Amino acid sequence: MRILVSNDDGIDSIGIQILAKYLSEIAEVTVVAPHKEQSAVGHSITMQVPLRISQYFRNGEFFGYAVDGTPADCVKMGVRNIMNTPPDLVFSGINHGSNTAINIIYSGTVSAAREAAIMDVPSVAISIASTSIQNFDFAGKIAQIMAKLVLSRENDLPRGTLLNVNVPDLPQEEVQGILLTKQGKSKWDDVYEERKDPYGRNYYWLKGDLIEVDKDLDTDQAAVRNKYVSVTPIHFDLTDYTTYEKMKNWEIEKLFYETKL
Amino acid sequence: MRILVSNDDGIDSIGIQILAKYLSEIAEVTVVAPHKEQSAVGHSITMQVPLRISQYFRNGEFFGYAVDGTPADCVKMGVRNIMNTPPDLVFSGINHGSNTAINIIYSGTVSAAREAAIMDVPSVAISIASTSIQNFDFAGKIAQIMAKLVLSRENDLPRGTLLNVNVPDLPQEEVQGILLTKQGKSKWDDVYEERKDPYGRNYYWLKGDLIEVDKDLDTDQAAVRNKYVSVTPIHFDLTDYTTYEKMKNWEIEKLFYETKL
Repeated sequence: MRILVSNDDGIDSIGIQILAKYLSEIAEVTVVAPHKEQSAVGHSITMQVPLRISQYFRNGEFFGYAVDGTPADCVKMGVRNIMNTPPDLVFSGINHGSNTAINIIYSGTVSAAREAAIMDVPSVAISIASTSIQNFDFAGKIAQIMAKLVLSRENDLPRGTLLNVNVPDLPQEEVQGILLTKQGKSKWDDVYEERKDPYGRNYYWLKGDLIEVDKDLDTDQAAVRNKYVSVTPIHFDLTDYTTYEKMKNWEIEKLFYETKL
Repeated sequence: MRILVSNDDGIDSIGIQILAKYLSEIAEVTVVAPHKEQSAVGHSITMQVPLRISQYFRNGEFFGYAVDGTPADCVKMGVRNIMNTPPDLVFSGINHGSNTAINIIYSGTVSAAREAAIMDVPSVAISIASTSIQNFDFAGKIAQIMAKLVLSRENDLPRGTLLNVNVPDLPQEEVQGILLTKQGKSKWDDVYEERKDPYGRNYYWLKGDLIEVDKDLDTDQAAVRNKYVSVTPIHFDLTDYTTYEKMKNWEIEKLFYETKL
């Protein structure tokens, strides 16, 4: 079994070390990850400038390939150029901080796994719901279990659908279980804090509070808050089918006559 | 009526000039757009560095606010900091090049409109299916019609759902009509072309061909190829509900016991 491992925190982060270590116990692992941190880059890809690949060593040993691009770039390049044949699985993480609810939209970690899904490669994104992480080893175990799950269910999981996994930052004995969830509806209440630089000019830092509206354990956000591991199947078909059906009654075809006025 | 206009091609692009011109005929327009081109940035937001805002003049007249960030940054900052109260509508475009099928995932144009949807502001993204654009005025007319449509249907279009509009690059008399569509399944067959720099080191440029699998006129990709204006309702709930229902039979809850081995 061959697994491509990537992330958005950069190839030198602890999360990807732990992920590679645990997945190496069950598969042949190739690491292709961003040279520098790429948090909140969303599904950005690099087209205007070329990319470079360098070999990254840790403690004198080859660890993986560093790409000076985004998480999605790393997966594209890993699958297309670095690995000779596509891997059985792409795994992205372990991210510092949860990727639940609206954060999925902004997440570089999820976009790496989604890029794999676009290329018809099964994939998983994994994040820990904390930025001061204590319990990486439990998340590593969960990564192993999820890799085995996805590979054993290869025929049941449609191409284009990936699993987004979020793990509470707790010792294993405090975790309550694993739950199947949907993307929550919690959102950020963002503001830009206005500051002045030493030359008297304004600049703005984004800051915000997450408004937690999710209460039910069948949402990723509430599951993790209530000490469960959350597993959400997500895809990249953004069509709002409910609205699509309703809009059939809008008869937008008729608006074409207005262009002729 | 107040409309915030943004894009991903940058505040100095022709597309946003045309869009602002046509929407100014029916509303009070505020332009907040990236200082530089931001194509394919996806739903990237800027958190690690601060943002700056500058006033942008065209032919000696104030045109709008330039932000040194991404399209999503511009909309967040436009709604939160620049406009005193949220606008009635956010409109993003007119993009050079279609945002149909898989391109929706990578698009900065769509992410600007989606950021508005996240903030509960009605929104539209508009793109022309060509990079050598001849027929901006027809797209401008369509933008006007879509702005009126969304505002008149404010109670029918759920918060969180935006319209993704794609216009063929044709003279008006050759356009066949307006169609309600779903996101197509066409994807890029990407490769990285390997080159050598003057110092003998490798670098890689992304290039690819779109593999057009969409045939039916109820997909964005096929509608535009067949000379129709395409209108797709999209949202940011990425849950794959079909797989979610099927996964209830997987009993992933039981996998928790494996963490205790």
